[in-house]
Amino acid sequence: MAYPEPLEELVVAFERFPGIGRRSAERLAFHVLRDPRARELAGAIERAVTGTRRCGTCCNVAETDPCSICADPQRDAGLLCVVEEPRHVEAIERSGAYRGRYHVLMGAFHPGDGTDEEHLTLERLVARARGEGLREVILGTDPDAEGEATAALILDALAGSAPASLVVTRLARGLPAGSGIEYLHKGVLEDALADRRPVRRRP
Amino acid sequence: MAYPEPLEELVVAFERFPGIGRRSAERLAFHVLRDPRARELAGAIERAVTGTRRCGTCCNVAETDPCSICADPQRDAGLLCVVEEPRHVEAIERSGAYRGRYHVLMGAFHPGDGTDEEHLTLERLVARARGEGLREVILGTDPDAEGEATAALILDALAGSAPASLVVTRLARGLPAGSGIEYLHKGVLEDALADRRPVRRRP
Repeated sequence: MAYPEPLEELVVAFERFPGIGRRSAERLAFHVLRDPRARELAGAIERAVTGTRRCGTCCNVAETDPCSICADPQRDAGLLCVVEEPRHVEAIERSGAYRGRYHVLMGAFHPGDGTDEEHLTLERLVARARGEGLREVILGTDPDAEGEATAALILDALAGSAPASLVVTRLARGLPAGSGIEYLHKGVLEDALADRRPVRRRP
Repeated sequence: MAYPEPLEELVVAFERFPGIGRRSAERLAFHVLRDPRARELAGAIERAVTGTRRCGTCCNVAETDPCSICADPQRDAGLLCVVEEPRHVEAIERSGAYRGRYHVLMGAFHPGDGTDEEHLTLERLVARARGEGLREVILGTDPDAEGEATAALILDALAGSAPASLVVTRLARGLPAGSGIEYLHKGVLEDALADRRPVRRRP
């Protein structure tokens, strides 16, 4: 006794998503059959696909192409921060500390989770590094294993293609402002010690 | 800077599913926008909803109503095993050890995960206990916390409504056949000790 074909196909469709295994896909599929509100997901998918666009420059999800940041002549066009996701652009914008542009990868490299190199917007990034006359690319991927793997992919992609004059940097690691040292993870303290900086002594 | 409206709505639609938090919903929504194959989920939802039916008796997902098990005159109509999900029916059928009928709850009680009492087919179960002249109801929920909570809900639901003559049992707990005692979880051994059974001594 197997599932009726349309149910099996729904399970398979859920399973194609990152981080969704067979067991979770079954649970999600049952939910569709038992909760009419869950079916609204079908329409939401269609509307999101037709109702949003991707900025052809930075690849962010946007209302316009180019997006408002790429179209802003006040932004420093020589400075590019590469981030994993739209929410990271939002976070950096909220900080008010950055006036360059962005490149949004739309994910982090995580093959076990279904996000392969092909899902990331690396080709577009390489084209930008070649053509936009950039001064500096800032690697703004997350400080975790997937972010590190993604940063390594970016470096590989830029290695053969970007002009030699391009400077590549990464966001600083260390103590998070406002925290207490006794609460911090071992890795945070390792970074803070490894990247310690000289301070000027009082005269 | 927030997400464009249709993207935000897609995130919210994913978030309504059990076990999907805001962060996962965002990841799933981004996947829809970056992978054309993921959009097939929309059609799969529509087809599953229109192309499957629920057995009006046992609530299982089926090709026909009543399903082939409920329609089978060879099955013991006085014996009903209540299980959480269609896959559990499949597993018990494969064992070949059961000849009664089933009732499929379509989930386990797990409010933190989005599965509330209203999602389960308890009302239908109570109606069956009242009307079908059942001899015995076997609680076949999973031997975990959600299964226990679900079994308690079933007992509550039956308490006020089922005939006093109805026997309610649960599946036995103990050592899983084919295992080795040294590999078993503490809880398994606790169950095996608590439910130990007398054996006949050799003469």
